[in-house]
Amino acid sequence: MSDVRMRGFKHRTEVAVLQTMIRERVGRMDSEVVPLADAGGRVSAETIISQVNVPAFSRSAMDGYALRSEETFGAGSYNPLTFKVVGEVTPGKNFEGVVESGQTVRIMTGAPIPDGADAVLMAEYTSESNGIMTATDAVSPKKHIGKVGEDITAGARVFEPGRCLRAQDLGILASIGAAEVTVFRKPVVTMLITGNELLKPGEKPVGPKIVDSNSIMLKMLVERDGGHVGEIRHLPDDRETIRDSLVHAPGDIIITTGGTSVGVEDHAPLLVAEEGELLAHGIAMRPSAPTGFGTAAGRPVFLLPGNPVSCLAAYDFFAGLAIRLMGARAEAWPYRSASYPLKERISSQIGRVDYARVKLDGGQALLLATSGASILSTTSQADGFVVVEQDSEGMAAGEMAQVWHYD
Amino acid sequence: MSDVRMRGFKHRTEVAVLQTMIRERVGRMDSEVVPLADAGGRVSAETIISQVNVPAFSRSAMDGYALRSEETFGAGSYNPLTFKVVGEVTPGKNFEGVVESGQTVRIMTGAPIPDGADAVLMAEYTSESNGIMTATDAVSPKKHIGKVGEDITAGARVFEPGRCLRAQDLGILASIGAAEVTVFRKPVVTMLITGNELLKPGEKPVGPKIVDSNSIMLKMLVERDGGHVGEIRHLPDDRETIRDSLVHAPGDIIITTGGTSVGVEDHAPLLVAEEGELLAHGIAMRPSAPTGFGTAAGRPVFLLPGNPVSCLAAYDFFAGLAIRLMGARAEAWPYRSASYPLKERISSQIGRVDYARVKLDGGQALLLATSGASILSTTSQADGFVVVEQDSEGMAAGEMAQVWHYD
Repeated sequence: MSDVRMRGFKHRTEVAVLQTMIRERVGRMDSEVVPLADAGGRVSAETIISQVNVPAFSRSAMDGYALRSEETFGAGSYNPLTFKVVGEVTPGKNFEGVVESGQTVRIMTGAPIPDGADAVLMAEYTSESNGIMTATDAVSPKKHIGKVGEDITAGARVFEPGRCLRAQDLGILASIGAAEVTVFRKPVVTMLITGNELLKPGEKPVGPKIVDSNSIMLKMLVERDGGHVGEIRHLPDDRETIRDSLVHAPGDIIITTGGTSVGVEDHAPLLVAEEGELLAHGIAMRPSAPTGFGTAAGRPVFLLPGNPVSCLAAYDFFAGLAIRLMGARAEAWPYRSASYPLKERISSQIGRVDYARVKLDGGQALLLATSGASILSTTSQADGFVVVEQDSEGMAAGEMAQVWHYD
Repeated sequence: MSDVRMRGFKHRTEVAVLQTMIRERVGRMDSEVVPLADAGGRVSAETIISQVNVPAFSRSAMDGYALRSEETFGAGSYNPLTFKVVGEVTPGKNFEGVVESGQTVRIMTGAPIPDGADAVLMAEYTSESNGIMTATDAVSPKKHIGKVGEDITAGARVFEPGRCLRAQDLGILASIGAAEVTVFRKPVVTMLITGNELLKPGEKPVGPKIVDSNSIMLKMLVERDGGHVGEIRHLPDDRETIRDSLVHAPGDIIITTGGTSVGVEDHAPLLVAEEGELLAHGIAMRPSAPTGFGTAAGRPVFLLPGNPVSCLAAYDFFAGLAIRLMGARAEAWPYRSASYPLKERISSQIGRVDYARVKLDGGQALLLATSGASILSTTSQADGFVVVEQDSEGMAAGEMAQVWHYD
């Protein structure tokens, strides 16, 4: 690619083309073993097969009395039948003995069914006094008995690779005795935040200096997408300093912010071209046109604009996609979406994608008028965003738009 | 409340009644100050007012040349105008001097506008050689200049209390120089996992013992809802041991699992009644009927059933609601939802709410046949759940159902 500095982008890569390029270029992470307690929200990298039956014994599904079901036939309020209570079995213990004819064992939910019994009569249909239980209802064979392996059978494939583990999945893994899980490693993201004008988050803005707002925003988004932020380096607009980090910083993926456009201090695209491959620079999108993508030192590199709205949009369209794919997650945006009619027209141009911040107003979506790429506050005032597709000149008032909710 | 052990629930509290009770009984947490970097996803407990303008100076929105706009009038491809380049200004630096008539200063996006200039001509419409810039387009006054405070003005109310801080909100807070944020404290949840039959997660199931699957599931859900899990205590079914933890364990809210029904080992409801107030026990819901709610030692106590599906549903309907409210979060479930036609009928009974696990199958929602409260694997096989309302006898095949997606 030629040096575009101070001459503008001659060619702009289409959003969909860059996304396809990312899918083709970005590999999946290797795996690691984590303790079960840390596996929530992680993506399984293995087929998990249960070695055990859950439960490993037949158990009572109710509080009541274990007995021989055939001996309850005919029982009712007007025909109570009596049984001798020969013991009690609570969860975690076995009943030592066999339930014989005319006998019953008091049993709690989850306790193992005693030998000889084939059903449980619910406590509600019984009364007990002086070692005698009176039954006022009949029960059919196997009633209220959970059989061996009713939840999970030994040998069952519990989870396939690619499963993002839910809260209840952790419960299932605990129940089959898993202590750890093999999951895809989180891609480690290194951020190179470039700009002589930047202070670090937590510092007070002074004079012509402004505070970097991108790193702290991106960190939360990277974590949302299953990545891990390793180092955040704040670098001056110095070619060799940036080059050194681009090549030698640790991490599985590099995100730079700032210095991606066509100014004299915009070193990052040229450095990627020199040290690796600059695959795209200049995107048919507004904002975020000065976005780049390439590889350097064998790693994907995303060049995100320094303007915070552009940075947010470019992250969500491109870098976030890569991080989710590397971690074997679903490709789709993690935002909820719903359709709303537009309150007013949204203008766009054929040939570019627009990222339009909207506010919901009486069930309609309203474009926020202040839409400059540097006005981050619009993304806080907005409830979400609408994507105006590349082949569209805009969207008319009243047209249904898919709103991606920021929350 | 009377002892319901071995006698069943006489009265069942309606789901909506218990939810109202929770809203009335559960207080909001106090606040704490956290570093900005840890404030993502936390809920602001203060009105945040900016002390500064962002930007604090007028700045260039483009790479190009700062000049006096009136001097560009008439410029075009066939009428190029020339300016003397008297300097360059990059972000983070001020131009020391004034742009005089016939002069221009090379300027990068984000750099402060030099005195004397009132517009920026984009680099695309210029060429530069030997200290002379040739302009091939005109520019109007104020063009490509971002004015002082265009993003945030000093004195503006940036966020109100109750704002759950988004990624971009952190960026905004950084940009106004915030180093820390006052947020609602996370409610600390203590779990009392009761049951003689239980092993801890990570242990192998053996004999009549089973592994506690609830604590590890609940931990992830509590964290999702903005709570913090403090201690997880695994306790035997022993009245005095449970009583001691109920009264003396640390935490803002107590969740017990197991021992909530009507069996002889179901101590928790009676203990809450003895040590505080048992406000509800037995809910008109399936599963999760043996759920309880009360207070003890001045804290809300949720008695969740030991059966894992019941535990999950009771958490989502009741305990999760309390945790979200205590943390000043939105009351609504954090699950995405969408409507699908039912593939088959779902039966229910008037007077109780049903929590039905469904799988999506060709755009239709299908009830999972195995629906026992102890079969946690149904909640992993399911894509989500449908709530059959209390006043419904069930839902017909083809009827549209709102599916709450587990993922």
